[in-house]
Amino acid sequence: MTKQVAVILAGCGVYDGSEIYETTLTLLRLDQLGIGYHCFAPNIEQHHVINHLTQEAVEGEQRNVLQESARLARGDISPLEELDADNFDAVIVPGGFGVAKNLSDFATASDNMQVLEALKTSLAGFRQDAKPIGLMCISPVLVPRLLGDGIAVTVGNDPAVSGAISAMGGLHRSCAVEDIVVDLEHRVVTTPAYMLATRISEAATGIFKLVDRINEMME
Amino acid sequence: MTKQVAVILAGCGVYDGSEIYETTLTLLRLDQLGIGYHCFAPNIEQHHVINHLTQEAVEGEQRNVLQESARLARGDISPLEELDADNFDAVIVPGGFGVAKNLSDFATASDNMQVLEALKTSLAGFRQDAKPIGLMCISPVLVPRLLGDGIAVTVGNDPAVSGAISAMGGLHRSCAVEDIVVDLEHRVVTTPAYMLATRISEAATGIFKLVDRINEMME
Repeated sequence: MTKQVAVILAGCGVYDGSEIYETTLTLLRLDQLGIGYHCFAPNIEQHHVINHLTQEAVEGEQRNVLQESARLARGDISPLEELDADNFDAVIVPGGFGVAKNLSDFATASDNMQVLEALKTSLAGFRQDAKPIGLMCISPVLVPRLLGDGIAVTVGNDPAVSGAISAMGGLHRSCAVEDIVVDLEHRVVTTPAYMLATRISEAATGIFKLVDRINEMME
Repeated sequence: MTKQVAVILAGCGVYDGSEIYETTLTLLRLDQLGIGYHCFAPNIEQHHVINHLTQEAVEGEQRNVLQESARLARGDISPLEELDADNFDAVIVPGGFGVAKNLSDFATASDNMQVLEALKTSLAGFRQDAKPIGLMCISPVLVPRLLGDGIAVTVGNDPAVSGAISAMGGLHRSCAVEDIVVDLEHRVVTTPAYMLATRISEAATGIFKLVDRINEMME
């Protein structure tokens, strides 16, 4: 049987959705390893729409997270509520501000962050069955509220974000862009990706390493 | 001096813009080879907006090609009018329906197609100086109107599209998804990408081959 990985998206674009390169590189590596995947996203309105040319919010414009995430999945995507951990061997959450704006309110609430209920529900089955969970870029900030206390993760070396992770009960480890942090006990793998990357090939190295490790942990 | 490649975008999403994976894989391979790149897109309204979940056009919604392309470039992009061939060693045009809807009207006009004037102007300098030009997926349909008659290209094996290329004065060669067609005399390299790809790793193989060949031709 081909192994299957669920990939959770939060829109399409670094400033208001999922980071495009991180998502594409994740899917590329999964496919290169012969692993099947399916994308999921919540069917909710985006926190806001950012003009990626000016980095300013667009007044009065609304977009739907599932519809925009569908761009990143070439249309092959399902609502997050339909994600059943029983059908997958692992789950990966790419980064991008959408994780901190649509999947949670970390961008505005910091360590008072709340996580989307549908995401908590979806991830609970993976956690319970000790299936590997991969997160990259800003996504590891979700871990304390999503998976519990005392889990080691990395977002690179950002003092504010790593401080918030600690304040919420997580363990932050500094990490280079081309490397990963593995919490073997809790089955969580993280990499800094565009929290640190200045070039797409740097992000690719860390992301490929994360997917390779997830692959080993599914065996 | 680091070699520099211009990448021309047409929005963000396979059905109304540039194909996301094709663009990301192009940028990844350029960066892995140590080649610099800069993205460009026309500052015009999109032909229309497609809901990528349903593949239906969204009534009354408008998006700007440059702003949406900026998502694919993480904000680092310039208007197409600012592209000066003198500053680049080659140019690559990824695919996606945006090429047939925003950079041209091929999607509605077929072999009566007209190409955006700003694109013609931008490409003229590359053609004149015999700098390599790469096109993938549907983009090779632009070649007869953009670069002239008798240039060999591929879009894979689609009878309607290859017929239209022939009708406009082009030469179409059938090609597998993981391969490329090179017109050495006219310095044009093409690959089918998502005209044929059923998996992202298949598209990657052809696209990496295209970028590798462009790299050799710049030497």
